[in-house]
Amino acid sequence: MTENQPQTTDPTPVETALGGDQAGLIAREQDVLAHPERYRILTGDRPTGSLHLGHYLGTLQRRVQLQDAGVPTVLVIADFQVITDREDPGDIQRNVFEILKDYLACGIDPEKTITFTHSAVPALNELMLPFLSVVSLPEMERNPTVKSELAASGQKTLNGLLLTYPVHQAADILFCKGNLVPVGRDQLPHVEQTRVVARRINERYAGGRTILPEPQALLSPAPLVLGTDGDKMSKSRNNFISISHTADETAKLLRKAKTDADRHIAYEPETRPEVSSLVLIGALLSGQEPEDFAAALGDRGGKALKDAVTEAVNEHLAPIRARRLELAQDMGYLRQVLRDANEKANALADATLAEVKDALGMVYY
Amino acid sequence: MTENQPQTTDPTPVETALGGDQAGLIAREQDVLAHPERYRILTGDRPTGSLHLGHYLGTLQRRVQLQDAGVPTVLVIADFQVITDREDPGDIQRNVFEILKDYLACGIDPEKTITFTHSAVPALNELMLPFLSVVSLPEMERNPTVKSELAASGQKTLNGLLLTYPVHQAADILFCKGNLVPVGRDQLPHVEQTRVVARRINERYAGGRTILPEPQALLSPAPLVLGTDGDKMSKSRNNFISISHTADETAKLLRKAKTDADRHIAYEPETRPEVSSLVLIGALLSGQEPEDFAAALGDRGGKALKDAVTEAVNEHLAPIRARRLELAQDMGYLRQVLRDANEKANALADATLAEVKDALGMVYY
Repeated sequence: MTENQPQTTDPTPVETALGGDQAGLIAREQDVLAHPERYRILTGDRPTGSLHLGHYLGTLQRRVQLQDAGVPTVLVIADFQVITDREDPGDIQRNVFEILKDYLACGIDPEKTITFTHSAVPALNELMLPFLSVVSLPEMERNPTVKSELAASGQKTLNGLLLTYPVHQAADILFCKGNLVPVGRDQLPHVEQTRVVARRINERYAGGRTILPEPQALLSPAPLVLGTDGDKMSKSRNNFISISHTADETAKLLRKAKTDADRHIAYEPETRPEVSSLVLIGALLSGQEPEDFAAALGDRGGKALKDAVTEAVNEHLAPIRARRLELAQDMGYLRQVLRDANEKANALADATLAEVKDALGMVYY
Repeated sequence: MTENQPQTTDPTPVETALGGDQAGLIAREQDVLAHPERYRILTGDRPTGSLHLGHYLGTLQRRVQLQDAGVPTVLVIADFQVITDREDPGDIQRNVFEILKDYLACGIDPEKTITFTHSAVPALNELMLPFLSVVSLPEMERNPTVKSELAASGQKTLNGLLLTYPVHQAADILFCKGNLVPVGRDQLPHVEQTRVVARRINERYAGGRTILPEPQALLSPAPLVLGTDGDKMSKSRNNFISISHTADETAKLLRKAKTDADRHIAYEPETRPEVSSLVLIGALLSGQEPEDFAAALGDRGGKALKDAVTEAVNEHLAPIRARRLELAQDMGYLRQVLRDANEKANALADATLAEVKDALGMVYY
């Protein structure tokens, strides 16, 4: 898989600001689009419910664009990571298929993209063991996401799976030699942890040979999409518009969306976050600039804004929702897509694990 | 595998002393020997070198006895655990076959006992993930063996693999529903940790169904065998007599063994540990009581003691060493034994992982 090695490029201003250790951390989008065959994207979601507009505008659309630009893509449905921060796993089986339907309906193409569940790929999970040997407890404890997820979970003590999940995430990325990870800026520590794991495995066990590529982050300019309550749109709050909602449900949810008392509609994210988020959603989904979308509404107030946003959402999502309903009628197809992808993921994981075990001398016949 | 569920027996005095939480922790040997088919032993070694007299007298002989008494036995050659406490894995491949030769030469029968390398069983290693979710960081940090192994390793910081190794050990035991773990008293915390993991997986994810049996410890009355320097015989010190040493090497090593100035040979472990350990080795290997072995030597001094012990070791080990040399000539056979065992271990691990994933709802086709 040498064709997927990350390219050396000159440091960007962001990289320079991050310091020498992180040189190479951030990929240049222009290089990715110019040489898609040199990359393999690894990204994914936890199956804790169906995906919403925040996901769609923040990551899903972009994944489809990158896939269609020819970047080999692997999507992990991270089922084991559901139990990092909760005791009740919920209906994981159902949630996996909800997400798979969302992906496929939005344009993820099973011929181009491998969408797999990591519980079905034992060799990926076995990589956790050598990876854990090169990461120290203080490093794991320092991970800012682990800290914030522990706080958000409401659990009193850190369990072993949440503690080690950045190492498991490294296995999710490196099992397929993923070298490009689309992330927001707050997730850069995860990519950096994965780079450290790859580097140490190569140095400590492979005599400096590059068995595992150090992945690069592809920074996503994800818009901040607020939920109907004015907080960040999130699965854990009941404030989201799902891809899978019907047009009527969408209208009903948006009618209750928080706005403000000013009848003049404008795009002013700093001072009027709720109204501006609605404007942004409407604009993005109808292919306009937020300012133009707002100007067309003038002084017609919150009701008119909500109607316009509802129309934009429902129009944009109509073909996606129709496709999603078709897919929902064909569980046999969905199972087959997942089975085929898991087979491909297993082949990739077996090959990578064999290389790591070979470096460790764990080859017996 | 319900036939392998642990039996409820009345608490022994030891169990009572350990307190209510640990009721059932310790198995009664008489019950094991009366109903061997109700048990499955899981035990093993790290492949860090060939095995020595301490292993032979402490565990190996007993494993063969239990195997021959009809207790289904699984031996793990714990290759990933080599890198818990060292950066250089050494020649793991060679060390695995050294141990396999020791096992087979001493009477481990591949028809009765599965001897496998855990790196070759991905589904076993995948069990780490749900297991980590039910164990907290403070629990892992409290494990006394983790603390002492960190101290012994000379490493400054605790790495993730050493931290989590009691959880990995739980996977080693539970992947095959092992319900009997022969241990010394100092290793009881490991068995207790495994019981806690089994209990919590059953309660949290399986609605109280017993997917995983809580294993019992089988306390080993392992004699304390000192090395030639008077310290505990150990692979990490250069003070051991290997099963694989030749008769001449054995004689040479024992000639340098530490004794004391008293020419009277006696079995007084408290006051004359070095002489008494030699007496014990000679007695155990020649089928005598230590007092009788010592009495026969009278006042003939350290030289005579060493000669007598050398003779006892070499006579006892002669057929084992001969068999070991034969085995060493037949790498094809050894590879086949390991391959067959790893296949059996994979079948067991796949079945157990499937049950755990079923409980978690991670079943998709």
